[in-house]
Amino acid sequence: MAYRFKKSSINKSGLPPGTLVYRGEEREEEVKITIFNYNGSYYLEERKVSLEEALAYKQKDGIKWINIDGLHNIEVIKSLGDAFNIHSLVLEDILDTDHRPKVDCYDDFVYFVIKLFSYDFEEEEIDIEQLSIILGEDFVLTFQEKEGDVFDNIRERIRNQNSRLRSLGADYLAYVLLDVIVDNYFVVLDEIGEGLFLMEEDLLLDSSQDILSDIQQVKHEMIFLERSVWPLKGIFNNLLKGDNKLFKESTILYLKDVNDHIERTIDTIQSFRDIINGMMDTYLSNVNNRMNEVMQVLTIISTIFIPLTFIAGIYGMNFKYMPELESQLGYPITLIVMLAIVIGMLFYFKKKKWL
Amino acid sequence: MAYRFKKSSINKSGLPPGTLVYRGEEREEEVKITIFNYNGSYYLEERKVSLEEALAYKQKDGIKWINIDGLHNIEVIKSLGDAFNIHSLVLEDILDTDHRPKVDCYDDFVYFVIKLFSYDFEEEEIDIEQLSIILGEDFVLTFQEKEGDVFDNIRERIRNQNSRLRSLGADYLAYVLLDVIVDNYFVVLDEIGEGLFLMEEDLLLDSSQDILSDIQQVKHEMIFLERSVWPLKGIFNNLLKGDNKLFKESTILYLKDVNDHIERTIDTIQSFRDIINGMMDTYLSNVNNRMNEVMQVLTIISTIFIPLTFIAGIYGMNFKYMPELESQLGYPITLIVMLAIVIGMLFYFKKKKWL
Amino acid sequence: MAYRFKKSSINKSGLPPGTLVYRGEEREEEVKITIFNYNGSYYLEERKVSLEEALAYKQKDGIKWINIDGLHNIEVIKSLGDAFNIHSLVLEDILDTDHRPKVDCYDDFVYFVIKLFSYDFEEEEIDIEQLSIILGEDFVLTFQEKEGDVFDNIRERIRNQNSRLRSLGADYLAYVLLDVIVDNYFVVLDEIGEGLFLMEEDLLLDSSQDILSDIQQVKHEMIFLERSVWPLKGIFNNLLKGDNKLFKESTILYLKDVNDHIERTIDTIQSFRDIINGMMDTYLSNVNNRMNEVMQVLTIISTIFIPLTFIAGIYGMNFKYMPELESQLGYPITLIVMLAIVIGMLFYFKKKKWL
Amino acid sequence: MAYRFKKSSINKSGLPPGTLVYRGEEREEEVKITIFNYNGSYYLEERKVSLEEALAYKQKDGIKWINIDGLHNIEVIKSLGDAFNIHSLVLEDILDTDHRPKVDCYDDFVYFVIKLFSYDFEEEEIDIEQLSIILGEDFVLTFQEKEGDVFDNIRERIRNQNSRLRSLGADYLAYVLLDVIVDNYFVVLDEIGEGLFLMEEDLLLDSSQDILSDIQQVKHEMIFLERSVWPLKGIFNNLLKGDNKLFKESTILYLKDVNDHIERTIDTIQSFRDIINGMMDTYLSNVNNRMNEVMQVLTIISTIFIPLTFIAGIYGMNFKYMPELESQLGYPITLIVMLAIVIGMLFYFKKKKWL
Amino acid sequence: MAYRFKKSSINKSGLPPGTLVYRGEEREEEVKITIFNYNGSYYLEERKVSLEEALAYKQKDGIKWINIDGLHNIEVIKSLGDAFNIHSLVLEDILDTDHRPKVDCYDDFVYFVIKLFSYDFEEEEIDIEQLSIILGEDFVLTFQEKEGDVFDNIRERIRNQNSRLRSLGADYLAYVLLDVIVDNYFVVLDEIGEGLFLMEEDLLLDSSQDILSDIQQVKHEMIFLERSVWPLKGIFNNLLKGDNKLFKESTILYLKDVNDHIERTIDTIQSFRDIINGMMDTYLSNVNNRMNEVMQVLTIISTIFIPLTFIAGIYGMNFKYMPELESQLGYPITLIVMLAIVIGMLFYFKKKKWL
Repeated sequence: MAYRFKKSSINKSGLPPGTLVYRGEEREEEVKITIFNYNGSYYLEERKVSLEEALAYKQKDGIKWINIDGLHNIEVIKSLGDAFNIHSLVLEDILDTDHRPKVDCYDDFVYFVIKLFSYDFEEEEIDIEQLSIILGEDFVLTFQEKEGDVFDNIRERIRNQNSRLRSLGADYLAYVLLDVIVDNYFVVLDEIGEGLFLMEEDLLLDSSQDILSDIQQVKHEMIFLERSVWPLKGIFNNLLKGDNKLFKESTILYLKDVNDHIERTIDTIQSFRDIINGMMDTYLSNVNNRMNEVMQVLTIISTIFIPLTFIAGIYGMNFKYMPELESQLGYPITLIVMLAIVIGMLFYFKKKKWL
Repeated sequence: MAYRFKKSSINKSGLPPGTLVYRGEEREEEVKITIFNYNGSYYLEERKVSLEEALAYKQKDGIKWINIDGLHNIEVIKSLGDAFNIHSLVLEDILDTDHRPKVDCYDDFVYFVIKLFSYDFEEEEIDIEQLSIILGEDFVLTFQEKEGDVFDNIRERIRNQNSRLRSLGADYLAYVLLDVIVDNYFVVLDEIGEGLFLMEEDLLLDSSQDILSDIQQVKHEMIFLERSVWPLKGIFNNLLKGDNKLFKESTILYLKDVNDHIERTIDTIQSFRDIINGMMDTYLSNVNNRMNEVMQVLTIISTIFIPLTFIAGIYGMNFKYMPELESQLGYPITLIVMLAIVIGMLFYFKKKKWL
Repeated sequence: MAYRFKKSSINKSGLPPGTLVYRGEEREEEVKITIFNYNGSYYLEERKVSLEEALAYKQKDGIKWINIDGLHNIEVIKSLGDAFNIHSLVLEDILDTDHRPKVDCYDDFVYFVIKLFSYDFEEEEIDIEQLSIILGEDFVLTFQEKEGDVFDNIRERIRNQNSRLRSLGADYLAYVLLDVIVDNYFVVLDEIGEGLFLMEEDLLLDSSQDILSDIQQVKHEMIFLERSVWPLKGIFNNLLKGDNKLFKESTILYLKDVNDHIERTIDTIQSFRDIINGMMDTYLSNVNNRMNEVMQVLTIISTIFIPLTFIAGIYGMNFKYMPELESQLGYPITLIVMLAIVIGMLFYFKKKKWL
Repeated sequence: MAYRFKKSSINKSGLPPGTLVYRGEEREEEVKITIFNYNGSYYLEERKVSLEEALAYKQKDGIKWINIDGLHNIEVIKSLGDAFNIHSLVLEDILDTDHRPKVDCYDDFVYFVIKLFSYDFEEEEIDIEQLSIILGEDFVLTFQEKEGDVFDNIRERIRNQNSRLRSLGADYLAYVLLDVIVDNYFVVLDEIGEGLFLMEEDLLLDSSQDILSDIQQVKHEMIFLERSVWPLKGIFNNLLKGDNKLFKESTILYLKDVNDHIERTIDTIQSFRDIINGMMDTYLSNVNNRMNEVMQVLTIISTIFIPLTFIAGIYGMNFKYMPELESQLGYPITLIVMLAIVIGMLFYFKKKKWL
Repeated sequence: MAYRFKKSSINKSGLPPGTLVYRGEEREEEVKITIFNYNGSYYLEERKVSLEEALAYKQKDGIKWINIDGLHNIEVIKSLGDAFNIHSLVLEDILDTDHRPKVDCYDDFVYFVIKLFSYDFEEEEIDIEQLSIILGEDFVLTFQEKEGDVFDNIRERIRNQNSRLRSLGADYLAYVLLDVIVDNYFVVLDEIGEGLFLMEEDLLLDSSQDILSDIQQVKHEMIFLERSVWPLKGIFNNLLKGDNKLFKESTILYLKDVNDHIERTIDTIQSFRDIINGMMDTYLSNVNNRMNEVMQVLTIISTIFIPLTFIAGIYGMNFKYMPELESQLGYPITLIVMLAIVIGMLFYFKKKKWL
């Protein structure tokens, strides 16, 4: 399950701060480095470059975007960090894949920790991945746990000479990355909303135990999504106030837009939680109602037959002197009395609206 | 259902910011542009004007109010935006019909996103529509998803030369629009309040499953209404503090009034949610009580007849040597004993207040 | 029910702001105007004066207190408003009898909207009435929905030449009015607290459906009381900070006292809500326990008799060859076995503490 | 019950502010005045002094601590108030024994309203008493509802010439009084915590109705304790910021300590409320489980005997032509079939884990 | 249980402030003092030193870290406090082992109260211990309730001449201590998270009373953990703003990191509480469902057999004139009718989905 709390594979407690330890899932595949180097007039794209090649780009002109897929090779992270003058605490945070989302402003760079949601349609579950973005004056470093295609669209735009992205700075690239990530939140929430809607329809038909565990699962997911987005609330607005040199005036307006989207995400998650709680209530009420219906049937059948059986029992007794038994009308009268009792009871239950 | 989360028909994630994509329901009807151009001494009203005619009004004197019904023609939005110098992010927000309510101040204009509630009496459901208002120095642009009659009253007042509206600026027109929208909140809430009152009366008579789904539905509606109004809390007061040039001193007092109304709307919604929760409790308790009543009947009937049936069973046994069977008083004494048991039990139940 | 949401009798949405529309209950009785005009040395009291007489007082010396009982005559409100220079938005708020409590500071006057609670001992329900107070430099206007006696005590104090009230300004009169209103909150809350205490005692004896509807009703009342007081929280303290000229230094201390009382009212209401929730829990638990008790009796009686009836059934069978039936000891042994079963079961239930 | 809401014996609404009315329980005993007058070198202690003697102390040198036990003699309060220049609103608050805890700073004195908890071991209930402390430049006045021994320890320290208390000012005495009161909170909370622990252990053994009313009672107590402490949150820290001349630099550090203790008290009360809610859940679940256990026994016994009784019924029928009845093996075979049914059912229930 | 509220063994109320009283569990073992004295070029480590030796270190050069294991010897705490100029209130807080976490800044030192969590794998419970850290200009004092190994790693780093710790000041040592403590929170939370995951899996299989008490226990633990961490929220960030001289610029960045970790701890605890509440719901629903299943079986068996038994009862009656009894087809037809009833009922239940 993607939304479980990740257990740190290695107990880091007691290690010196800044000690780099990868705290994510074990992975086999190689760490991939992809580089985009562009300005208004040219662009260059290199995939699967070696660490040395990547470091060489630091000196080049233009905007540099270095994307690292995979964090399990600590050496790569460390060398990049040294080359770009990244504080060791930041490197530590990059490797800690269960970090709280945040924005940290340093003198030379801004560090974003943000969660990337993606909906796995096959497994029908939500995948939460951590993404670290470091924005320097003319470079952006992005660190992903595993390869993904969420940024393909941005790559396409870089390739297109006429796109706005090509003519603007690294801060705009950082914004575009954040924007894509936050837009993805809506895609996932749409999917969940659709699922909730279907679950609500199911609830009307079905009250099996399965639907309860579905409700609990989606509740779980909401707890994890909220935990992944909540700390971002207002964080970009704060960023703007703290007059950071790395963000140009024109980009600041866009950051406000990202902030709007995050608040809407949080609103939506909270609405979903309210709805899920309502579904829980409906489920419990359904279960209750169904049991009541069953009980009612028992009650009515029992209540009708118990007196009848008693009457039959009376005339099943073997007393020598029971005058009714001798009478020829005894049997038919008894049957008629029984019928009268049944009709009387049905009438009473009808009146009480139990039937 | 009008209060469902709208699923974006097009996945926008990854597109450049400012890319205009319509995110609302598909619509067939043509986009309608209506223009009012007025000042104290004259007024001019044109309906179903073409885009070109509308753009031509930009240069005219007096207050210009351009209302657009229908957002599905992106070309119209874009041209208007360009003509009136609207930032592309704002245009993007106008088209995103599930946007969070907000007020954004730009240098030349103020942008309002606000939700319009209307109660559909036929379907007995609430319709939430997004409305965007752009207030410039001498113009107001309004963008509605579909044609509606909520502003007819304002149009009438513009036509009336003696109305206050005619002698005041575009900021007053913007206020009047906001005021009408917020006043509409009370109309819808009154309708819901009336509905809640009827539901509470129904609850006393009825505890069917139907009423539970009614409660859940109105709870849902409240979640959506709250979500549509909550972000406006205090937003107009903030607007006033941030000394915006577009609002004149005299209009500011009115904006405070709008703020009061929004806070009252939120208070009312929260009271409704409390009341709905109480109704849920009452419903569950009713269901429970009804089942208890049914159970009680079963208990009493069973408890009375089970021992009697047992006694009848005793004397139905075929043992050769059962002295009671021979006695002539056996049968009447047995009947009397049975009667005594019944009376004793009824007395006991009466004492226990179970009857 | 006094605590129902008032439905605006007239849909005001779309009317120009400042349009005066009475939004309260329809009333027959005439609007009554009462005037007190006093200073340290003289006082004058007039009841049921005409509108013209009232307006004439504006020019007189001394403190003027004009009390209006009944808001359904819009003309009266309008003329007074014009004479005393009251903003039309304020007049609109006075007429809207479901307004949110608030304090608005204008240049020449302060406007208070406050709710007046009174306990109707006959109907055993709480009455919430809206009161508007306008404090000018040398006048106080009060607007009540209907005639009441809550201010009689203050009138008495004005008549007494030696009272402090006579020697102090209009701001002190306004404070005294507020103080009486807020002190009335405690009278009503005391009454409710007493009622809650009685309900708690009832709960121990009774678990009928009636008590549930009592609990729900008092819960409702609390929602409405909270809604009527909550917005006042801290509002008087804020008033003091915003250096308002109309309140003298010496009166400010008293306003702080009003603020204390409001916070205590809110605390008490919240304690009551907690207690009511606890009563709800107790009620549900009582109902549950009572049903369990009933069920237990059924269980025990059924469980004891079902095996006995089975044994009787065995020997009621008509098989030709059942040796026990021939034996002379058959019947007594069967009875002894049955008795043993009963004793064994009672012993078992005793051990299980079910009895 | 000590934690009930006190009903004001006299309806004060409408009286002029500053009118002194005692709002506590009726008391018979005389009001006792105790005086301590001390400085570093001497101390003087007088008990049961008359009002006149007490007032005479005002002019004496050294620190004066005047303690009044009993508030029902309004004359005493009024004379003291006049002599020490206490504002009439403060005197009114002293007499209102259900006042909200607060700290008010006046020019010449600081006024504390604080609640004193004490645990009545005999009645096993919590007693909440109001205490008013007035700190002037060289005097401290304390007002208690009834005589108590909570300050005995402080008295002992004053008598001891070497104690720190003797060499420091009135502000330190005020702090020491507050410290003792707040330390007492822990004594009471310890007692409650111990009680909660015992109740939790009882819960495992017992699920009678009694324990429910115990839980509700302690929940009630928590509501009242929270209400008595919550308003003090942060109040002493605020006191320090508002540079009050009466508190010396050295005492301020101690006030911060009192603040710490109050926050811990609030934390503890909230933890207790969480624990009590958990106990409520456990109780309800216990009751439920117990009923389920009882139901299960009924189900199993019924389910086993109902088919058997039916079979016995079959062969109890009096049809002329029932071949089985004639067969010599009829009876034993029937018994064997019955046994097989019992074994089969027990096996099935075992498999289902119902047994 | 380690998470119970500690009852103060001695009632401190009424003692002069600053009176040192040990408020923790009684302990037998001796108080152990361990000293580290180091700078970049040398280090010295002494274990089990006497109080006098420890005090002598005060005058030495380099960083001094004095760790005290065990607080029950008040003399030791007092002497150390006097030697290092620690305020008596701080000493009092050190001894109060149930203190609220906090940071207090004094002129010469900073005082931290922080809780140390450790997971006792044998008892499967969480141990919360209080730790006091006093940071002076060139010394760090740490006070633990009992000996533990949580700082062993730090000791190792001090022994290593090349470690960063050796070359930095006392403030960095304090940070490292805090960092280790907070990192330990994750270790404990990981353990709990793992436990929760197992409990959730158990819940699907089992709904015994045991699992309920497990849920309640872990809920309890969460209340205590939250109470131990919550007050630290934001406290380190505040520390930074209040420009404290004892923390160097370079260390401040690290404190921010500790702050991040604390916020994440709080987030995780809250997620856990949400999850536990969900588990409680699931448990209750499971219990309910299980009982429903049992009830259903009873209902179906009863409902099928009750009419059959009645029919058998009819023909068990001893009326003289019952024509069916004489007929040779009477018995087989009766059996067939019974079978038909069974089939009809099964069919009905199948249709109703009760089977």
